[in-house]
Amino acid sequence: MTGFRAESLKLYLVTDSALAGPRGIVSVVEKAVRGGVTMVQLREKNATTRDFVQLGQELKRLLSPVGIPLIINDRVDVALACGADGVHIGQDDMPYPLARRIMGPQSIIGLSVENMDQVRQANLLDVDYIGISPVFSTPTKTDTAPAFGLDGLAVAAKLSVHPCVGIGGINRDNAAAVMAGGARGVAVVSAIMASDDPCSAAAGILSLL
Amino acid sequence: MTGFRAESLKLYLVTDSALAGPRGIVSVVEKAVRGGVTMVQLREKNATTRDFVQLGQELKRLLSPVGIPLIINDRVDVALACGADGVHIGQDDMPYPLARRIMGPQSIIGLSVENMDQVRQANLLDVDYIGISPVFSTPTKTDTAPAFGLDGLAVAAKLSVHPCVGIGGINRDNAAAVMAGGARGVAVVSAIMASDDPCSAAAGILSLL
Repeated sequence: MTGFRAESLKLYLVTDSALAGPRGIVSVVEKAVRGGVTMVQLREKNATTRDFVQLGQELKRLLSPVGIPLIINDRVDVALACGADGVHIGQDDMPYPLARRIMGPQSIIGLSVENMDQVRQANLLDVDYIGISPVFSTPTKTDTAPAFGLDGLAVAAKLSVHPCVGIGGINRDNAAAVMAGGARGVAVVSAIMASDDPCSAAAGILSLL
Repeated sequence: MTGFRAESLKLYLVTDSALAGPRGIVSVVEKAVRGGVTMVQLREKNATTRDFVQLGQELKRLLSPVGIPLIINDRVDVALACGADGVHIGQDDMPYPLARRIMGPQSIIGLSVENMDQVRQANLLDVDYIGISPVFSTPTKTDTAPAFGLDGLAVAAKLSVHPCVGIGGINRDNAAAVMAGGARGVAVVSAIMASDDPCSAAAGILSLL
């Protein structure tokens, strides 16, 4: 068993280098942490492995002392290299059993599900949480499946044996509804990463949950 | 110590999905193996992690029974997931000490070097081999450093404490000269992957070495 606590899902920040811009990922995450984010996922789709590992190491140094789990998107090698707390994998990433074998029993592993069949399949796996993706359609990711919507989220959260976090298009205006639908937390990208004031943006969403 | 034998470098096939085309990587590698390639590197820059792992598993099933080492380009996670014999890393990939720690002492690790300074730095590491990259300029990789040329290759091979394989623009016409320059082998991409007859292409180059 991993030491994962579902409360860590509450305000789950997913990074985006383009949205962080010249401020850089680490600077934005640092401010968001002061605003109260409870878990951080480093997501890099275009970085070299070397840069990805270095960014992971910097975030680990920032997050470890304050007890906030660092999760790496997709890349098990990067997670091992930077000593991250776990990985978040999607349906096109490494199959879960392989990821678990390589990461070990202590690591947090989250899995994105894009439809009800995948929720059922995830019920057969000892993942730590599932990401309901996307709850709403979103400009951040353009390769996503049709959105669950709040009704679909509620069905998925009831169906799942795992704690659920909603992801996709979540912001101040809809975060409370996502929690009311049965999610244990909200994963947020743009609403924090693109904010001029990531600390207040995070604190503002957190106050609604 | 790994079980690496420098003779494996002799005719080192590096894959390219675009050049394999609709035939697929596995089919081209299978023919090239019949022609005598001595080691295979799976290089995928655009595949999803899931597809990369699956391709690695298929190649492992093909190569393992005939005793040909399978090396994965860059991705330590993919190498672990498919049970590859090692990884080949470049200067933008995971730093060597991290790759060694994660892969373990038994795995083969090769490192690309792009100039004499990097040859000297590699001398301080217990890598299994270095790739002199590129020997000649090449259309396959467009992000490469200035070419070593045959003279530079000879200097690098003499300077290195590790067995060297030449890579970049190597074909029938220049393979023998690369060996004469002190390389223990030639890494070949286009001259085999783009051939209508990968078996004969491999056998033809091998006969010159």
